[in-house]
Order: sequence, then C-alpha cells, then structure tokens
Amino acid sequence: MSNIKALPLLEPEVDQGVVPCCPPLTERPLTAEEAERTAAMFKALGDPVRLRLFSLVASHEGGEACVCDISDVGVSQPTVSHHLKKLKEAGLLSSERRGTWVYYRVEPSVMAAMGQMLTAAAPAA
Amino acid sequence: MSNIKALPLLEPEVDQGVVPCCPPLTERPLTAEEAERTAAMFKALGDPVRLRLFSLVASHEGGEACVCDISDVGVSQPTVSHHLKKLKEAGLLSSERRGTWVYYRVEPSVMAAMGQMLTAAAPAA
Repeated sequence: MSNIKALPLLEPEVDQGVVPCCPPLTERPLTAEEAERTAAMFKALGDPVRLRLFSLVASHEGGEACVCDISDVGVSQPTVSHHLKKLKEAGLLSSERRGTWVYYRVEPSVMAAMGQMLTAAAPAA
Repeated sequence: MSNIKALPLLEPEVDQGVVPCCPPLTERPLTAEEAERTAAMFKALGDPVRLRLFSLVASHEGGEACVCDISDVGVSQPTVSHHLKKLKEAGLLSSERRGTWVYYRVEPSVMAAMGQMLTAAAPAA
C-alpha cells in the first residue's frame, strides 16, 4: 500500500487546447486557479527568444510556420524547436505534422483571451 | 585604455515608465530589441502569485492598492511587497509612498500596449 496520491496534471488539459480564461484584470481579482492557468501563458511569452519566435509564427504568411521557415533569430534549429514546443504546451500554438516538418499556428482564441485580460475598460473607479 | 563598452541598460528606462512598444504580434516579427523589452513584461505576469496580485491592484477600488489592502493570497506580506516591486520594475505598476504605505497603481498605457500586441486583427493571410 502506498500513501502516494495522484496529483492533478495540468499538461494534458493544456495540450488539448486551452479554454480561454478570465475577465479583464481590472474587473475583479483572479482566483488562485485562474491565475495558475493563465500565468503559464504569460510565462511562455516571457522569454525574448520565445516571444520573437511567437511573433514570427503569428505574422508568417498563412498564419503558420515551421522550423524550416525560421532563421535569423540567433539560436540553433533544435533550440527553435524546443521553444515552439514550449509555446504549444502553454496552449499558444497548435501544431500539425505535414511530411518532414511540423507546422505551428497561433491559437487566435487564446491570444484574444489574453489580450482581453489586458485590454480592460477603465480601471475600477 | 579599455575595450569595454558601456552596454545599454534597460532597467532605468523601465523604472521611469515604459514606452509602449511594438505592433500586434500578427503584424510583423518583433526585432530582438523589441522582444527583449517586451518579454520582461510578460515574464512579470508569468508567475501565478504575481499575476493574482496584479489583478488585485488592477481591480481594487480607485485603481490602486497597498500591501495593507492585500490579504488572502497565501503568501506573507514581505513576499507580496517583493512581487509588487517586481511588477513595478517591469513597468506594469507605478508606486507612490503616502505615510506608512506604498500605494501601487497599474500603468494603463503599458497594459493597453500589451493587450494590443495580443489583440491582433486576423492573422496574416
């Protein structure tokens, strides 16, 4: 017998697509659970290389890009792949393998939800 | 004589108020410099406790709060102060001392600029 209990895992949920979360940050305080879920997305954009890669994918022709489309970011292709995977794990990108390459695409609903959290009406008066 | 050159420092600029940066992420790739500057703000919101504190300040009556207004986040007052300082360093909050307490207030222009980066029109077609 063991006392070890299964802890809830966040990853699977995130991988299946993130449910856009939470009202504008000026509307009401986030609950601990909401903050936990959302901070992971902000954190994913909190690295300069990753943020730049995200903007490369987001602004690429057709709204998607593979590692083969990305150069000039000053890091190796494996590093690019690693960062793209992290962005996917955070729910910000989705991916699809086509032939040799995995193509990444922004999740517009997630991006919009994050944007909405920040684009508040006026702060509480 | 020395070959050491002064590197540009980002911190002082950030402390004096952040100049809103960068177009929507779907418009064009960020430059390395833009990504460096902006990632710091996303990173500041990339911690669950910090994000929750930010939402507490942002949604507090009058749009400002001091440590004395904040409880129930499950961390000590010094930890709250530490996180609020980090948010200030990232340019997301400004502060003002009044008597015993330092009051923090969201920087609406910075929040709006971050929101705008995420609230893109349609992805590049």
